[in-house]
Amino acid sequence: MSTTPDTWFNEQHDYSGSSIGFRVKAKLHAEQTPFQSIEIYDSTDWGKVMVIDGCMMVTTRDNFLYHEMMSHPALFTHPRAKRVVIIGGGDCGTLREVLKHDEVESAVQVEIDERVTRLAEKYFPELCESNNDPRAQLLFIDGIKWMAECEAESLDVIIVDSTDPIGPAEGLFNEAFYQACLKALRNGGILVQQSESPLVHMPLLKSIRSAMKSAGFNAVRTLTFPQPCYPSGWWSATLARKGVDLGEFRERGAATKQFDTRYYNVDTHRAALAVPEFMKEALGE
Amino acid sequence: MSTTPDTWFNEQHDYSGSSIGFRVKAKLHAEQTPFQSIEIYDSTDWGKVMVIDGCMMVTTRDNFLYHEMMSHPALFTHPRAKRVVIIGGGDCGTLREVLKHDEVESAVQVEIDERVTRLAEKYFPELCESNNDPRAQLLFIDGIKWMAECEAESLDVIIVDSTDPIGPAEGLFNEAFYQACLKALRNGGILVQQSESPLVHMPLLKSIRSAMKSAGFNAVRTLTFPQPCYPSGWWSATLARKGVDLGEFRERGAATKQFDTRYYNVDTHRAALAVPEFMKEALGE
Repeated sequence: MSTTPDTWFNEQHDYSGSSIGFRVKAKLHAEQTPFQSIEIYDSTDWGKVMVIDGCMMVTTRDNFLYHEMMSHPALFTHPRAKRVVIIGGGDCGTLREVLKHDEVESAVQVEIDERVTRLAEKYFPELCESNNDPRAQLLFIDGIKWMAECEAESLDVIIVDSTDPIGPAEGLFNEAFYQACLKALRNGGILVQQSESPLVHMPLLKSIRSAMKSAGFNAVRTLTFPQPCYPSGWWSATLARKGVDLGEFRERGAATKQFDTRYYNVDTHRAALAVPEFMKEALGE
Repeated sequence: MSTTPDTWFNEQHDYSGSSIGFRVKAKLHAEQTPFQSIEIYDSTDWGKVMVIDGCMMVTTRDNFLYHEMMSHPALFTHPRAKRVVIIGGGDCGTLREVLKHDEVESAVQVEIDERVTRLAEKYFPELCESNNDPRAQLLFIDGIKWMAECEAESLDVIIVDSTDPIGPAEGLFNEAFYQACLKALRNGGILVQQSESPLVHMPLLKSIRSAMKSAGFNAVRTLTFPQPCYPSGWWSATLARKGVDLGEFRERGAATKQFDTRYYNVDTHRAALAVPEFMKEALGE
């Protein structure tokens, strides 16, 4: 199906009463998988846009913000993350960022819906450029089940790169799942969960932090960063650590990183750790 | 005019091919002034929304981000700003933040369109709560002309809180205006200009910085912060300083401030100074 040049794809986010949209040239693909509906649009200014169950997931132009901030802060906080698992992340953009780190020996992506990855390979090939890295393993199975059966104390970093907590991702946002993550992590291991917008999802953000603490994580910290295609344009990732405090990140490592990024650097990592006054109040910090 | 509960006000930003909207309950007001069209909506989740020439200017819920970041970084960089001028800023939110600083002895707001302020008084009364402060002066005249005639070396901080550089604000974004600002500032004085989105307006941002330097300012620095109701949801303010470097800000002053803020604190000030990799590249830093 093609659309007229003046068509806009507009996502009306009922919960926050706000909407975000992009001018599109064409709808390139639409399908209903066993798990969700997936649409791909070609936009005039943001490249390709992937929409899952009506919610924008990635655009070619702005996904670097999210993928870099879901990966590098955790990997530059852990002293040496050898084994990394991504739950969800089917567009493979997080996997690409993780594999930029030489210390990573194994990165497993556990995506429930293979079609997300197949469509990413076709429409976002740049995000999939590390899929054939010998350290990468792509599994298309239920991440909740995989984590429950994961060998204890076998992982260094778990990145939960999921859709919103409705539909297939609902079970990724609760204490039972975080307990399975805690068990699978080695001491000092880090869990990263995308935790929605601090401006419009504070109740959910608080419940994620609370569930992580109840599950037994020692330290919890929320990072923020801009993300135009998500509600409010400002997003967060919440980090939790097993056994020890989150502490400082490896500034020297970040400052001398041997790979390119477009948003991430030492200063934006520090910036992401800043907690605005309204968040301090809401989080009781 | 009232609208149905499911109506959305949607701003389609042609330049960036992106749109932002809010669900509205009613259109409370619409008028054409000698300068521009102004509409006020009542939204379901963001309070009142002021729209000028089709562009969202402020919402009750998110304006604190912009107003605090247009004011406090400059006022906590200047050692002691006694005389402050706001060019534009008719909703009075920036004036309110400026007057939170005890060191400010005089704050003049020079807004070309009195109707913006009269409508703010009615629909955003919280933003106007300092309008009767004895240190405040509200003028409804052309800011460009006012600045050209301003006494030399009489001001400490100039905040250009304008609409986009089309329509009445066009003349606020060029070297001639910045030269007038430079002349009006005392040595060490600071100019602040809202400088649009780093994600979608980089050419304009660069031209603002370039014009400030050409006008004779010694140092130029761009700060970033989230702002949901503006294109891309991420915005910037560019600071320029006369005679001396921008240097460090007064962290101790910011940490011991005697007034409330909702976004601004020492950490978010530092965070706003972080320059992402793509900006470093675009700005040649």
